[in-house]
Amino acid sequence: MALLYKADPVRGQHWQALFAEHAPDIQWRAWPDIGNPNEIEYLAAWQAPDNLEHVLPNLKVLFALSAGVDQLDLNRLPAQLPVVRLLDPGITRGMCEYASWAVLSLHRDMLRYRQQQTARCWQAHLLQPAVSRRVGVMGLGTQAQQILATLKPLGFALSGWARSAHQIPGVDCYAGEQQLPAFLSQCDILLCVLPLTEQTQGILNAGLFAQLPHGAALINMGRGGHLVENDLLEALASGQLSGAVLDVLQEEPAPTDHPFWDHPQIALTPHIAAMTQPSTAFGVLLDNIRRHQRGEPMVGEVDRRQGY
Amino acid sequence: MALLYKADPVRGQHWQALFAEHAPDIQWRAWPDIGNPNEIEYLAAWQAPDNLEHVLPNLKVLFALSAGVDQLDLNRLPAQLPVVRLLDPGITRGMCEYASWAVLSLHRDMLRYRQQQTARCWQAHLLQPAVSRRVGVMGLGTQAQQILATLKPLGFALSGWARSAHQIPGVDCYAGEQQLPAFLSQCDILLCVLPLTEQTQGILNAGLFAQLPHGAALINMGRGGHLVENDLLEALASGQLSGAVLDVLQEEPAPTDHPFWDHPQIALTPHIAAMTQPSTAFGVLLDNIRRHQRGEPMVGEVDRRQGY
Repeated sequence: MALLYKADPVRGQHWQALFAEHAPDIQWRAWPDIGNPNEIEYLAAWQAPDNLEHVLPNLKVLFALSAGVDQLDLNRLPAQLPVVRLLDPGITRGMCEYASWAVLSLHRDMLRYRQQQTARCWQAHLLQPAVSRRVGVMGLGTQAQQILATLKPLGFALSGWARSAHQIPGVDCYAGEQQLPAFLSQCDILLCVLPLTEQTQGILNAGLFAQLPHGAALINMGRGGHLVENDLLEALASGQLSGAVLDVLQEEPAPTDHPFWDHPQIALTPHIAAMTQPSTAFGVLLDNIRRHQRGEPMVGEVDRRQGY
Repeated sequence: MALLYKADPVRGQHWQALFAEHAPDIQWRAWPDIGNPNEIEYLAAWQAPDNLEHVLPNLKVLFALSAGVDQLDLNRLPAQLPVVRLLDPGITRGMCEYASWAVLSLHRDMLRYRQQQTARCWQAHLLQPAVSRRVGVMGLGTQAQQILATLKPLGFALSGWARSAHQIPGVDCYAGEQQLPAFLSQCDILLCVLPLTEQTQGILNAGLFAQLPHGAALINMGRGGHLVENDLLEALASGQLSGAVLDVLQEEPAPTDHPFWDHPQIALTPHIAAMTQPSTAFGVLLDNIRRHQRGEPMVGEVDRRQGY
């Protein structure tokens, strides 16, 4: 019985060492050296090979090495193959750090002060108390809830929106299409950590921006596909939005002529909010393999109709 | 009986309205219209007038409108005049927000990503877990302790140093000259919130930087006088320090030819980490006036020998 790894080769060596030490019964294979394909029961991958059912005829589980699975074309995978997201506590911590940094950057006018540094301008601007700054999170899954918990001690007024109803102490929760306008109308800083699905593709667009308070700010830590990039440029030009912190783009790496690179009101980072850390992710992955071997439910199994 | 206000006139109008509403027995005077100087018993000021004993012969207390009092020349004030610092919870919250933003900026390589955005370079760098990032705070007063409490849930390894011994749960505390080298040798990110005194003037210098781990980073939220600015430039050039976030400078506003403005490894903000907020500071100031009127000790009284 073997596990095939198909992702970044440098981190692959960390994974391999962890398997050798803690799970010697599971044979390690690294793409493209797959050996005898009939022996491979588990695939741990960022993206799956084409023709998966023919390449790995005895595959039992596909473990995505990421929290989101939109990079997998679920419709092209064998229909009965379980797909499991990686709920790595290291990823969640990374998301919380990035979210705190991004919210504080916008709350404390740091894009403006970045511009002022470039312009050699020493000028202070009034400081708004966190308690009067309303931060709204789109998405209320594990990561979003941890992000809200991290922001709470900083004193922000917190709200959240998701497809389905949630109850989170200290957070005003809104659900579904119907409550989206009410949610948006009170978000000074909007933070997106939605999964990317057909329903959420392009959700951050001109129509949504128009429902935010004038001068609101945007953080996108979901996927590039959530944001209609031209609509953001127009909202910044009109003043409807005052700034944005973006970790993801439609096309990554961003082409060198992308208009976000030198936009003074955009802070752009190269998809680094969180990274899978073998040191924390290994335990989660191995636990799921053992659960599968014992016939127990795995943690993070994707509902393929919902896409997450 | 009257109080004389001598600071920013715009914020002065907020103060005046608060006094009119909540303490109508205290007459309001705003510099330079001081009226009958003999009636003035309290002075609330950023800087004191010269010849204070002659200008305000019946002055009973000088309330500084700031947490630090280094901008006052204590030696030139009447010897028996109580000087009280403003321990505004709004200032403390501002310091905590700025400290979190600055620590996260350095922890998450945001100065490097800022440079990369300018250079249109999309490249991720390995992410170090917060638990292995050692943040050391110089100064362990009220503000420093609140900053440490704010950083704690983010998972950093925390230490602190002050002149005198402290015990803070979850923080490795070091005290005095003797323990300074041990403290410095384990600080990946050093954050200064010391008061500025004769002893701490220029404390952030080449000799101190050399005791930090190679590639450490610096945050100065104390006063510009703490930092020997040329030593920082040399430490950044040699690689001994990897970056700095500075909110204060020797000369403020910074002259336009200051070398920090366009330094890629320095984030510079115009002394905005915290601002006195009349809405939160008024209660603290009025409470101290009432304490003085009842003959009780005031909160934040400066020990004039120590200078803070």
